[in-house]
Amino acid sequence: MSELPTGNAVIGQSGGPTAVINQSLAGVVEGLKTGLFASGKVKRILGMRHGVRGLITSGGDGLVDLTGIDAERLERIARTPSAALGSTRDKPDEAYCQKILDGCRAQDIRYFFYIGGNDSADTCRIVNEKAAAAGYELRCFHVPKTIDNDLLENDHTPGFPSAARYVALAHMGDALDNASLGGIKINVIMGRNAGFLTAAAALARGAASGGADPSMRVGPHLIYLPEVPFATESFLADVDAVYGKLGRCQIAVSEGIRDEAGAEIGPKLMQGPGEVDAHGNVQLSGSGALGDGLAALVKRELTPKGGKAPRVRADTFGYLQRCWPHPSPIDAEEARAVGRYAAALAAQGDASASVILRRVSSTPDAYRSECARADLSQVARLSRHMPPEFISGANDVSAAFHAYCRPLVGDLPVMERL
Amino acid sequence: MSELPTGNAVIGQSGGPTAVINQSLAGVVEGLKTGLFASGKVKRILGMRHGVRGLITSGGDGLVDLTGIDAERLERIARTPSAALGSTRDKPDEAYCQKILDGCRAQDIRYFFYIGGNDSADTCRIVNEKAAAAGYELRCFHVPKTIDNDLLENDHTPGFPSAARYVALAHMGDALDNASLGGIKINVIMGRNAGFLTAAAALARGAASGGADPSMRVGPHLIYLPEVPFATESFLADVDAVYGKLGRCQIAVSEGIRDEAGAEIGPKLMQGPGEVDAHGNVQLSGSGALGDGLAALVKRELTPKGGKAPRVRADTFGYLQRCWPHPSPIDAEEARAVGRYAAALAAQGDASASVILRRVSSTPDAYRSECARADLSQVARLSRHMPPEFISGANDVSAAFHAYCRPLVGDLPVMERL
Repeated sequence: MSELPTGNAVIGQSGGPTAVINQSLAGVVEGLKTGLFASGKVKRILGMRHGVRGLITSGGDGLVDLTGIDAERLERIARTPSAALGSTRDKPDEAYCQKILDGCRAQDIRYFFYIGGNDSADTCRIVNEKAAAAGYELRCFHVPKTIDNDLLENDHTPGFPSAARYVALAHMGDALDNASLGGIKINVIMGRNAGFLTAAAALARGAASGGADPSMRVGPHLIYLPEVPFATESFLADVDAVYGKLGRCQIAVSEGIRDEAGAEIGPKLMQGPGEVDAHGNVQLSGSGALGDGLAALVKRELTPKGGKAPRVRADTFGYLQRCWPHPSPIDAEEARAVGRYAAALAAQGDASASVILRRVSSTPDAYRSECARADLSQVARLSRHMPPEFISGANDVSAAFHAYCRPLVGDLPVMERL
Repeated sequence: MSELPTGNAVIGQSGGPTAVINQSLAGVVEGLKTGLFASGKVKRILGMRHGVRGLITSGGDGLVDLTGIDAERLERIARTPSAALGSTRDKPDEAYCQKILDGCRAQDIRYFFYIGGNDSADTCRIVNEKAAAAGYELRCFHVPKTIDNDLLENDHTPGFPSAARYVALAHMGDALDNASLGGIKINVIMGRNAGFLTAAAALARGAASGGADPSMRVGPHLIYLPEVPFATESFLADVDAVYGKLGRCQIAVSEGIRDEAGAEIGPKLMQGPGEVDAHGNVQLSGSGALGDGLAALVKRELTPKGGKAPRVRADTFGYLQRCWPHPSPIDAEEARAVGRYAAALAAQGDASASVILRRVSSTPDAYRSECARADLSQVARLSRHMPPEFISGANDVSAAFHAYCRPLVGDLPVMERL
């Protein structure tokens, strides 16, 4: 906690957008306005277009001045899904971070706020270290965001509750659609390494969602997470058992399921070579390949000899999971709060931090969370996975997961069946 | 209008379910309760499990007694998406209809209500004719339902507004996701022969949706309907032009797009042979093949020689379009009204009819519709398509379509951009 520098502040958004990432942007802006801007330590509040790309664009053309933005417009932006400043998939290395630091110097930036996942926390960390080594006073703050819910130190991350709400609502409607016409329905859900979002499908079971409904009337009947090795034979046996009993089967499957050896199932089922993204991973989202591959597999293997093929359908939920315009109300609130908290940490003289969310109370109707701080290194680059106590067997989640997730997603409709 | 017969009534649901098909079920039940049941002409109100399949099941095992259902439970069922009675894809021929008639006789059914599309209207028509020929008094009523919006005589059909709402909300969020990270985004929408649901994507543009925003800032930028022949070369040129100008392009495309010769594009792009459904059509829904095929085509053809491939993603919206648990409020109301109206027609002594929806007023904030009757033959088997005045050029919809569709979908959120 040293004396506060005077200069400009910059805010950026990075990685896959969420339904509430603009709440965090608004939170940082209003936190600065009432804090460091009011006290004169921050002169201008700047936004980076497309994350750190906006900062390394020459002459400041990639920056937008948010200092004078009026409160009503900021509120409308906060309620708009997806990154209002634009986002980026760039994952800065040392050389890139040097350019970021140069951009900060050029714009007299002393406060750096980056809204994103563990890569964004790492960018904050590297830039902060480079600035310190160069003797340039720069305060760096990471604001958490990811629908994958995979940041360490956090109870959960802003963006996840809204995506989980979408996945739960989708499975509620889809389970009844599946029951109407029968057959096997496969839903592929985002989350390459962490199964939290796929697990949220279980909330569609309502009160029965802490473990499968004994009568098996309500879907999803089977849930496959990236944390649990996926064995094709067991999968087919699971599906066959449910379908044989009910004449239908609703399956929630993570895009990132992998076998015992850790090899992803998606690319193995793909017809052609998948696209490789900037991080060297095979492109799984924005393609129906895994769902279609699993559907073809089920149809081929579960068609009785000389008999009729079961009706098998697959939906890949895709980008709507992270941009559906009706977020979880709690998520909107918390995403705003982590932004404000980052500005407050800066005003208190913190030199660098990652804002984290902690759960204070999880009792029904009395859920509460609070913001706190962690060191950047506690969050940067690291990933969290579904803990064993949230997983039940090879194809389900536990009652503990239900208790954890249910308060986050807001009201769910009541479904009545005949 | 002859004397009313005395006996039982039966209600069924057929074809692809919708978010509000149970409102129509509830409407028929409550219309009967206060009408023919109260007057003693209807003794029992029965539901068919899985449409007419439930009626041809021996011994009445496929029927459920709804006579004593309490109003609160009926209300909860009305608010639940997808067919509570179960649905069927069976398209009865003469022999099947004879079995239906036999089922009606066996259960002393004198009033037959079928909620569905033009195939369901045709089933009503055939069964009605068979009953008349056999001298068995049976009153047959078709209650309209289809997200495709393709029934003749109707301004629009229950189920369509809720699906259109989903498609509009999806494109609002997704357009901003596309703007955040750039690239080309393809969304495949249900509707094999009629483009109404795909056209609803235009509502995502907000006030600018009656024709493309001149600044092209807001998506969807391109809309491809089954009514407009799809030419691959023009498609690629359209996408190239928008992407070249904006660095992004959001595309709404119907699953049923076809070339000049009327051949569907989907199967042509598919890697393997598609599944053929009960109507002899290639299976287009529940598979990402068309979207993935178009994405691969765009990537292959629009990658500059020696240059970087554009980021191309495809989402196939799939079954969530018809079962999302938050329907359009107007749709819920109208779906209830057509059910009630069918029961009222029966009470008035009508021998057979298809209930239709007419628009009374379309002025903003004063939209109103009313129910009316048509002969079954005016609706049965026939299909409606997007009229020319709703289409603009090769890749857009008109202001007239916007004026037509906007009042149906309910409130849409306000999106603010930086």
